[in-house]
Amino acid sequence: MFDNIDKTDINELGEFGLIKHLTQTVELTQESSNKGIGDDAAVLDFSGYKTLISTDLLLENIHFDLRYVPLKHLGYKAVQVNLSDIYAMNGIASQITFSIGLSSKFPLEAIEEIYEGALIACKKYGVDLIGGDTSASAQGLVISVTSIGYAKEEKIAYRSGAQEGDLLCVSGDLGGAYVGLQLLEREKQIYLENPNIQPDLEGKDYIVERQLKPEARKDVIDLLAHLDITPTSMIDVSDGLASEILHICNASNVGCKLYEEKIPLDPMTYETAREFGLDPTVCALSGGEDYELLFTIPQADYDKVKGQLDISVIGYITEPAAGKEMISKSGHVHEIKAQGWNAFKNKS
Amino acid sequence: MFDNIDKTDINELGEFGLIKHLTQTVELTQESSNKGIGDDAAVLDFSGYKTLISTDLLLENIHFDLRYVPLKHLGYKAVQVNLSDIYAMNGIASQITFSIGLSSKFPLEAIEEIYEGALIACKKYGVDLIGGDTSASAQGLVISVTSIGYAKEEKIAYRSGAQEGDLLCVSGDLGGAYVGLQLLEREKQIYLENPNIQPDLEGKDYIVERQLKPEARKDVIDLLAHLDITPTSMIDVSDGLASEILHICNASNVGCKLYEEKIPLDPMTYETAREFGLDPTVCALSGGEDYELLFTIPQADYDKVKGQLDISVIGYITEPAAGKEMISKSGHVHEIKAQGWNAFKNKS
Repeated sequence: MFDNIDKTDINELGEFGLIKHLTQTVELTQESSNKGIGDDAAVLDFSGYKTLISTDLLLENIHFDLRYVPLKHLGYKAVQVNLSDIYAMNGIASQITFSIGLSSKFPLEAIEEIYEGALIACKKYGVDLIGGDTSASAQGLVISVTSIGYAKEEKIAYRSGAQEGDLLCVSGDLGGAYVGLQLLEREKQIYLENPNIQPDLEGKDYIVERQLKPEARKDVIDLLAHLDITPTSMIDVSDGLASEILHICNASNVGCKLYEEKIPLDPMTYETAREFGLDPTVCALSGGEDYELLFTIPQADYDKVKGQLDISVIGYITEPAAGKEMISKSGHVHEIKAQGWNAFKNKS
Repeated sequence: MFDNIDKTDINELGEFGLIKHLTQTVELTQESSNKGIGDDAAVLDFSGYKTLISTDLLLENIHFDLRYVPLKHLGYKAVQVNLSDIYAMNGIASQITFSIGLSSKFPLEAIEEIYEGALIACKKYGVDLIGGDTSASAQGLVISVTSIGYAKEEKIAYRSGAQEGDLLCVSGDLGGAYVGLQLLEREKQIYLENPNIQPDLEGKDYIVERQLKPEARKDVIDLLAHLDITPTSMIDVSDGLASEILHICNASNVGCKLYEEKIPLDPMTYETAREFGLDPTVCALSGGEDYELLFTIPQADYDKVKGQLDISVIGYITEPAAGKEMISKSGHVHEIKAQGWNAFKNKS
């Protein structure tokens, strides 16, 4: 599995040695990080701000497949997925804890790869690594990330704040991560049948990256601040657009109208979905893992977003009795149903 | 494995259904918990205080063995172990996130047991459950806990604050959790050889509980506050007394003298260690999992602790050049070495 890299047995280092080795280059950059790794707990100071906390567990063969996920990308993605939750509150991510459980089949160099990916993500997003836990695992690789952030009270965007008449907006484009996954799964099958065939991902960089190396949309949070927009509600698109719209509608007790033709799709997502015989709209609605931001804004803010290429207005919020509906390209009305990614159902 | 309880397949509920089911009775009690479960991140307010964060990963067959650990105890212990780190900073634990990854061999009732244990611990310690992640696992049970707490800046006890002349103190008694583990391991082996033989733990409640159901020492933190003592340094005893003393000495750049005869041992720990042919002192030094608090206080505070049955003065802090030494009952001087529990070495 790790034939192409040098191997150092992690047993030689021991737990404390391993932690010391992995964290020796970690630096603190956030003013709120008073004390990071090296004591029983990290010490933070969020004076004047609300503290935001989110956590994710990533498990081998459930959330990732090491047969096509490079370890560095895995570390990077584990951090992104978690930071995305802080941005989805309209907050600024400032710290993470990063824990790894791994079996002795992993040499030190493999853990270093994961860690390096995590630290690249931290550096890029200005986030401090302040703690974690490193342990042996009897089976499989386990990653647990907790992210910490902050926001002024009046800037926090909960799922529950959408109001009738608000515009429903989404950043970037959708469905790419799911179509990228289909491509990787196909190449994996071909490889398993004949290991001499090299994977053919030529020209598909964008959607493969959407799957393997997603970017949390801090830039969208910064853009909204720059545009002087505080979303009335917000959520990140991890389980698919349909599931997230329903979360906002249910938490806010409102209905919505979604226009299929307004759902932003990248041309490569569209074409590759078609190659696989998939409906690109369904990929966006149910695919998930895009880590774009879905949010609502008052109609009065429309002028502020209308020239922004990275923000699409895809519908609007209605009274609850009007239901949660999508108007298709052909003008038909469909009830929005969540068929998002579900770790338990996938396994059944 | 779960023959004695009703079984509901978790696949029937799905991820969101499971989270809703498990968290429906969760209430927030801490003033700092502004928003708990149900959004992208929890929202906390630690105005005027420093925030403390600690995290632990617990993996099946590394940190626990389901053949003798009741699930409710497992949930309880997972929380205690983590809260202990906040108390070890002389802080007050206020919130946790609790994540579980588990394979479909676990019925709903098994997860409920784990969760119930976690919530009993939360309630007992006045801690709010504010988030987490619940996922399928391809193999084994994974628990990840992050605890959050707070403290006034001047009250925080780092590992690095011990000063020459300070008294070295420990709460409660040591070695019991390790000896309890030996007992459980022995009974497991007997059971594996003949499942008709019932485990014989008669009269050993104390040390079995020390292993299965440890208590984080919030009461000691409260006592220290009541006695008007701010420890100059503190750590919790998770890896064994020797390892923790070395952490404090190394972080504080000091030496120490530890008196073997002063190490607090419960009579049952002592007797049972002897039955197993183990040196009780070695069980205390290297056993770990006692979750007592090891701390240093100025000599001037001696009068405040001398009448406290739950606090033992076991030595004192010296200049670094004097080394880290234990004076044995027979008067011999030994260098203190860490041979604490090490998840990686155990597995090699």
